[in-house]
Amino acid sequence: MTSDALSIKTIAFDADDTLWRNEDIFIHAQDAFIELLLPYQNEVFIRSHLGETQVKNLAHFGYGIKGFTLSMIETAIELTEGRISGSEIHQIIQLAKCMLASPVELLDQVEQVLKRLHGRFQLLVITKGDLLDQESKLARSGLADYFDVVEIVSDKTPETYRQILQRHGWKAEEFLMVGNSLKSDVLPVMDIGAKALHISYHSTWEHEQVSEEVLQSYPLLTRLKDISQLEGWLQQTSSR
Amino acid sequence: MTSDALSIKTIAFDADDTLWRNEDIFIHAQDAFIELLLPYQNEVFIRSHLGETQVKNLAHFGYGIKGFTLSMIETAIELTEGRISGSEIHQIIQLAKCMLASPVELLDQVEQVLKRLHGRFQLLVITKGDLLDQESKLARSGLADYFDVVEIVSDKTPETYRQILQRHGWKAEEFLMVGNSLKSDVLPVMDIGAKALHISYHSTWEHEQVSEEVLQSYPLLTRLKDISQLEGWLQQTSSR
Repeated sequence: MTSDALSIKTIAFDADDTLWRNEDIFIHAQDAFIELLLPYQNEVFIRSHLGETQVKNLAHFGYGIKGFTLSMIETAIELTEGRISGSEIHQIIQLAKCMLASPVELLDQVEQVLKRLHGRFQLLVITKGDLLDQESKLARSGLADYFDVVEIVSDKTPETYRQILQRHGWKAEEFLMVGNSLKSDVLPVMDIGAKALHISYHSTWEHEQVSEEVLQSYPLLTRLKDISQLEGWLQQTSSR
Repeated sequence: MTSDALSIKTIAFDADDTLWRNEDIFIHAQDAFIELLLPYQNEVFIRSHLGETQVKNLAHFGYGIKGFTLSMIETAIELTEGRISGSEIHQIIQLAKCMLASPVELLDQVEQVLKRLHGRFQLLVITKGDLLDQESKLARSGLADYFDVVEIVSDKTPETYRQILQRHGWKAEEFLMVGNSLKSDVLPVMDIGAKALHISYHSTWEHEQVSEEVLQSYPLLTRLKDISQLEGWLQQTSSR
């Protein structure tokens, strides 16, 4: 065992479903959307078509509520063969505005942990999604002052992390990322030789899931039950 | 006269309608949108309602094509009292995808000027809009390598510029911003004591326009005819 944590200077946190609830907001919106379309199609079909449209549209619209909303509207039109009414589509737009205005609900222990790490490590947020929405959530979260740097990115690939480290002149071995998405927060960070911890959230968007087969090539993958275990992990690893 | 240009170390450029054409893409999309709604309403009414919806929705959706598209859809539903068909709304979504896929057309002399300034000044892009779209345009523009820093922001207020300067440790008197929007690129930069040059584009979105009354409080406002005058301005100012 190496004394990994001794060398960690910077800890980056994903935001959505790591610092505050997010997937729940999408799930509720999706449920309302399905309810709206039930007179036209069955639930399984609506759900799978929306998922496909969303993933297909990522290349055009990127992540976030605005792109999700455009995908809901496109799905609604396609699944009803254009029979969906204007007022029903208006409800989808209202759904988007509700999503954007949802209160920011911090996850358990997040603020306490950040407060204790603040000053001992350089703290970061690295989040993907719509720029304005992510900024607004960070401002409303009350957590902004704990972070030295905020990076809002369009995607989270190894290249994304490599560029962030390079831009700030940080070494990979001094960098730790903490997040709920294996695909976005953990594996690409491990790919560039930096450290990452996975803290799973009770629900994960299918698109962010990773197959067991892929996971087998990451034998050093470390998972924590929740953010309150982070300090214990840092301590334990540094004393080895 | 002070020897302003002597002290300039960093030159930041707005992107849309400063480095490449952008407003034209919105104007064409808007024309197609009006065409689509003409069976329901008259042009003047459509145009003004879309403008109002767009500005009203900025607080929810921010700048960029995705928010503009959601505003077009909302306007279409409201102006037709819900009578707009699903296939017509689908055309609006297709319009958005066309906008996002529009080729990046550089403005005259942009690349030549950047090539000559590169290495002599620290060069920046500061642009607002959708994250993925702006990144994609910069990549497709072929200009990315001229810039030391790229900042994609959700809005351009004095606070936005103050934060950028602070984050990089730059002094206001060493910073010059060049852009086509008085409201976003010029006045807020002058407000924080940095320098700004206005290069107008043949069309400006109404929301970005500034009243004569406001302009009177900026007697030092400097306008160039086009980007090719920038080096002359730098030289002239430094020799004073």
